[in-house]
Parts: sequence; structure tokens; C-alpha cells
Amino acid sequence: MIAVRSSCKEFAKFLKMSVTHCFVDCYSICSLFKIHRWRQRAGSSPALGTKFKFHNCYFSVIVHTRFYCMDFIVVAAPFELTLVEEKHEKIKKLYDSGLSPLDEISEIASQCLKLIANLKFDDYGSVGNKNYICYHELIYSRPIATELFISDPEEFEASWLDFIEKIDSENCSCQLEVLNIDRIIYTAIMSFAICYDIWKNSSRKTPGTHFEILLGSIFSRFFINHNRGKHISLPDGESLSTDICFSNKNEIFVFPAKTTTRERIVQPYAHQRILDSISPGQYRSILLCVSETQRDNKKKKVNDICVPGTIKLYQEHLSKLTGIYYLDPPVRYLSQDILKLVKVGSIGELLKSDLSNIIKLNQVGNE
Amino acid sequence: MIAVRSSCKEFAKFLKMSVTHCFVDCYSICSLFKIHRWRQRAGSSPALGTKFKFHNCYFSVIVHTRFYCMDFIVVAAPFELTLVEEKHEKIKKLYDSGLSPLDEISEIASQCLKLIANLKFDDYGSVGNKNYICYHELIYSRPIATELFISDPEEFEASWLDFIEKIDSENCSCQLEVLNIDRIIYTAIMSFAICYDIWKNSSRKTPGTHFEILLGSIFSRFFINHNRGKHISLPDGESLSTDICFSNKNEIFVFPAKTTTRERIVQPYAHQRILDSISPGQYRSILLCVSETQRDNKKKKVNDICVPGTIKLYQEHLSKLTGIYYLDPPVRYLSQDILKLVKVGSIGELLKSDLSNIIKLNQVGNE
Repeated sequence: MIAVRSSCKEFAKFLKMSVTHCFVDCYSICSLFKIHRWRQRAGSSPALGTKFKFHNCYFSVIVHTRFYCMDFIVVAAPFELTLVEEKHEKIKKLYDSGLSPLDEISEIASQCLKLIANLKFDDYGSVGNKNYICYHELIYSRPIATELFISDPEEFEASWLDFIEKIDSENCSCQLEVLNIDRIIYTAIMSFAICYDIWKNSSRKTPGTHFEILLGSIFSRFFINHNRGKHISLPDGESLSTDICFSNKNEIFVFPAKTTTRERIVQPYAHQRILDSISPGQYRSILLCVSETQRDNKKKKVNDICVPGTIKLYQEHLSKLTGIYYLDPPVRYLSQDILKLVKVGSIGELLKSDLSNIIKLNQVGNE
Repeated sequence: MIAVRSSCKEFAKFLKMSVTHCFVDCYSICSLFKIHRWRQRAGSSPALGTKFKFHNCYFSVIVHTRFYCMDFIVVAAPFELTLVEEKHEKIKKLYDSGLSPLDEISEIASQCLKLIANLKFDDYGSVGNKNYICYHELIYSRPIATELFISDPEEFEASWLDFIEKIDSENCSCQLEVLNIDRIIYTAIMSFAICYDIWKNSSRKTPGTHFEILLGSIFSRFFINHNRGKHISLPDGESLSTDICFSNKNEIFVFPAKTTTRERIVQPYAHQRILDSISPGQYRSILLCVSETQRDNKKKKVNDICVPGTIKLYQEHLSKLTGIYYLDPPVRYLSQDILKLVKVGSIGELLKSDLSNIIKLNQVGNE
């Protein structure tokens, strides 16, 4: 712990060394970062997650304390993380304006992979035949399935280009092995999520947003005759927020995108039910997820959090999802009692063949 | 900050003073609390939330650090909190065995009110004509509506006894003013929630569980001819977890109980829909909540987080809730556009008159 209270100069000197995190008293941080106004205004510390940039390090407040001289604790992240954040903002803007920033999505993943390369990781055992690790620096990342993760940035960039080239937009499919498709998309989202888990833990929703943008951009290459949206307009001026949807004059495909479902599994079912009530037969929901893994810190292992009974109940009594697709499907959902009610598979399968079959089926139905 | 590293004795001396929280290095805490095994076993610090008891203070790990000598941070809570925790466990057991531990619920609220009496609080402004405060010590509590909160333990105990006495089980109503009923139940849940917000922040779900037990126990006095449950058994061996339900041979009342709804508002609607699909007309859902308030730390104010469009949509296209009742109803939901679709009111209103009307209506319907 550095005696920042005694001297701001000392603290500044210290920052030039390779800091990873530090405790800072309010007076010093106020002088250093010129944030004196906080104290003056509210008599309180800056909010959790507040960022400072100083000497090529950026700091964010991770916990408040009221212990003696220390008033809050800041954690420093590598400067490059600010570039990742800026790129994410840019990608979001491009996506919201209707574009599919596939190059930028590849670049940000590659940047994240380079940042991750400096991190330590711990083995978190295996679930079925899949091995998991968690990266860490002060805080632990979500579990990563090693089989699905391309840790080399150059290998990832080449694979991504290959994937995008092999998308067959006409036939709504992809000429790449299923496992390769899964690995590329998995790496694209997880590299970003690891960085945010570790250095931007207060931005919990951002990896989910990035997952939505990532899939929306990729799927746009498959739905070249549909319009992409985020909401479905309903009668009475209401609208339903559905993550990703693709519509033409006959049909609307709804893609709820969740990194994990947890208790949110009810939402896509409820939405499909509402859509069925408003316009029977026009809407098809396909749920897209990363995984259902959860990190058990005590036992240093990974659990799949599955609710097979709930899925059966919802699929039978609430509404019908057309499919549930994961990048890392939980084994429990691939058993026969679930599969006889709803198709569960990997997003690679969906993009390689299932999507084109679903669209064809729909066209036959509409004719 | 105490130089715990230099001397465990010093630290022990320090603990005898009135500590509220402190930073402790791993070596000292291990010696003091005889938890050396952590280091030996996993080479890591104890998990977040891990508790130690020492010198009549109990400590729990609130954040991990890797900064120099300090390895984790513990926060100390008043010793009496352990009594609250023990009582909560006891109440839970009694409730789960089918009892309604109303005396214990009053006692725990009174204990919590005594603990809170030592806390500072900040004004968090007003929403409509309701004023809010937040209690704090290192961490801030959820917002408390002063009008609804009885801060004097003795006044609370007397009011509680009066309330229980005035329950008219035969007529399923209560001979007490609506505002008084709301204040008593609001104080019972919020006194507990404040303590957990501040000293047991890692047990985020416990106040919700306590709210369920509190309402389930009170409502048992109103439903003397029904059986209380937590789950509804469905065909195929499935079951629906519904917080509180009361059933007899003709009807089942379902009471989802949530301190706030947020995105979970979809769940009671989806459950009612499933129940309608399985057995039309047999089930009635009435949603019970504390409030929809949210603390805005930056502006030091309170916001009501409302989703009127969503409620309208669900009520029209998903299923029909019989009512939505709050202890502190958000003003937005008391406007005509919502009320014409679904009854929204206070739990005081429900217990004073609405519940008996709903039950009578149901009996007419079943005859």
C-alpha cells in the first residue's frame, strides 16, 4: 500500500511503475485527477466504475471505503483497454446505423486476445469432455472452454476472414465445418468478455450487448433479403424488445441473444406467446446463447446451470421456440427428452444448415 | 489503516475498540482466525462472504485484493447481526414446516430496528409526495419511504400485535386502517432488508426470501380454509415455483412475492398463462411487491423504475393477473391507463377489503 496521503508526487512516481491496483485516499486522487468537485458537490466519493486516466494508465473505482484516509479503491487496467472500449462504442454506433461492422468485430477480438495473452489462468476442470479455464488478475473471468477458444490473435484473424468468405448468402449457409464456426464466434465474444470481466467488472451488460451486435452482424450476411431490427412494433404504439430480428413482408425471425439464460429463459417464450397472440404464424423465435456455465470459486470447477423441466414446461404450455442454439451447448439439453420437444444445437449447426432449412420450411408454409 | 502486518497483538487490541471495518493482510488474519488452511489448501484467499467471528465482532470478506501485504478486506458487523441471522434461519425452518412464525417475525424486525438506530442516514429526496432516506455505513441501504417506516422498535411491536389481533380470519379481512397495515408490513420487511444491505451485502436474495415468509405467514391468517404451498404440482411430475400459493379443492390463489419486479415482471404472467393452459379458470395470480424504487447514487435521489407499456402488453396478450399490490405503490401504476386493465393497489387495501371480495367473486364463479 502506498502512502499516498503524504505525497502526491510519490504516488505519481509510483504510477509510472507497473501498477495493477492501488488504494488511494480521496485527497490525493482529487489533486491528481482534478476531481475535487466530487467532494465539494456531494461530500461523497466518485461512483463505482468512475474512470480516471493518468500516466497512460486508466483507473476505475472498484469499491468504496470509509477507512481512515482511504476513501475509495481504484483498479488500473492496461491502457489498451481504453482502445477496446472506444472500438466497442464505434462498433455499436455502426451497428445501430444498420451496418454490419465485421472487420471491426474481428479487430476488437484480436486486440482483446493480445491483452489476455499477459494474463494468468487457472484450470477449472471439465464438464463432460470439455475443459475449462478462467483467466484472472485480481478478479476472475467467466469460464472459457479451451476447445472452443482460439488464443492466438493471428490464427483468429485468419479464421475469421475464412469464415466470412465462406458464407453463402444465396443459400443462407456456410461452407465451413460446424466446430470451426463455433470456435470463431466463441473466440470473438469470449475474448471481449474476459477483458470486461477482469478490467471493467462494473460494465456487466456490455459483453451481452457485444454478443448481440456480433450475431446481428454475422446473421445479416445470411439474411440478405430481410431487414434487421431490434424491436417489433405492435398495435397501440407498443413495441417488443427482441435483441435481433429479421423481417420481410411474409415472416419475421426473432433472435433473442443471451450469453446465458438463467431465469431469463422465460422471456423469449413469453415474447413468442405475445407475438402468436397478435399475429399467429408470422413469427419464429430462435434463442441464441453462449453457454450455461457458471464458475464455482470454492471448488474451482465449472457447473452447467440447466433447467430442463422449465424448458419442457414452457415449450409445451407457453409457446413454441423454433430452436435453442448455443456456442457451447450444455450436455443436459442434448438429451432425448428435450430434443423431442425443441431443437437444441450449436450456432455452427444453425449457420451451416439448420437456418436454411428453417427458412425453406417457412417459405413452403407461406405459399 | 492499521498496520496489521507488524503485529497481531496490535490488531487484536484494535478489534476491542469499536471497529466498523478494516483491511487485513492474509498472514495476520490467518493467525488470528486460525484459517491458515486456506493458504495451504488453495494458495488463495477465502471466498467473498466468508465469515469470521472474533472478539464479539463478526467479519466477512467483502473484496479481494492483491496489493502488497493486504490480501482481502473484511467488514465487521455488529455482533447482534449474528442473532438476526440465526433468527432468520429459525423462522425459515418454522415456515417451511408449515407454521406461521408471526411472533418471531415481529421480534426479528424489532432487533433490526435496534441495530439500525445506530446508523446514519442521508436524505434521498422525494418521489411524488413520498420522502425517502437511505441508511449507510460503508455501504448504502435501499431507499426507505419515511412515511411508511416505523423506526421506533416499541411502537412497531405494539402496532404489530394490534395488526395481528385485528385480522378477521372468518371474513378474510382486517379491521385496521389501510395505511397502518402498509406501515407495519413495510417496517417488518425493510428493517430486515436494511441490515442485510449494509452488513450482509453478499446475501442479496435473503431479504426477498424474508419477504416471502413474512407475507406467507400473514396471509395464512386470512386463508384459514386453504392449504399454503410454495409450488404447484403439474402433470408429468413437473412443478411450478410460485413463491406463495393457497389452495382448496376448488381454487388456487398464486402470490408471486418480489421486493421489486424489474425484468422479472414477465414471470408471474408466464406462470398464469401456463396454469391457464393446464387448467383454465382454476388459478388466480396476485402479484405482491414492496416497491419499484431504485437508488441513484450520483444524484442522491430515488427513481421509480416503471414499465407501464410492458404491463399493458402482458396483461392484454400474455395472461390476466387478478391484481398487483405494493407496500409502496409506484405512482405511475395508479393512473387510469393501467388501472383499466389491472387492479393496482397497496397490500393494505388487499388485506382490508380486496382479498375478501376476490374470494367471494371466485366462490360465485365456482358455484
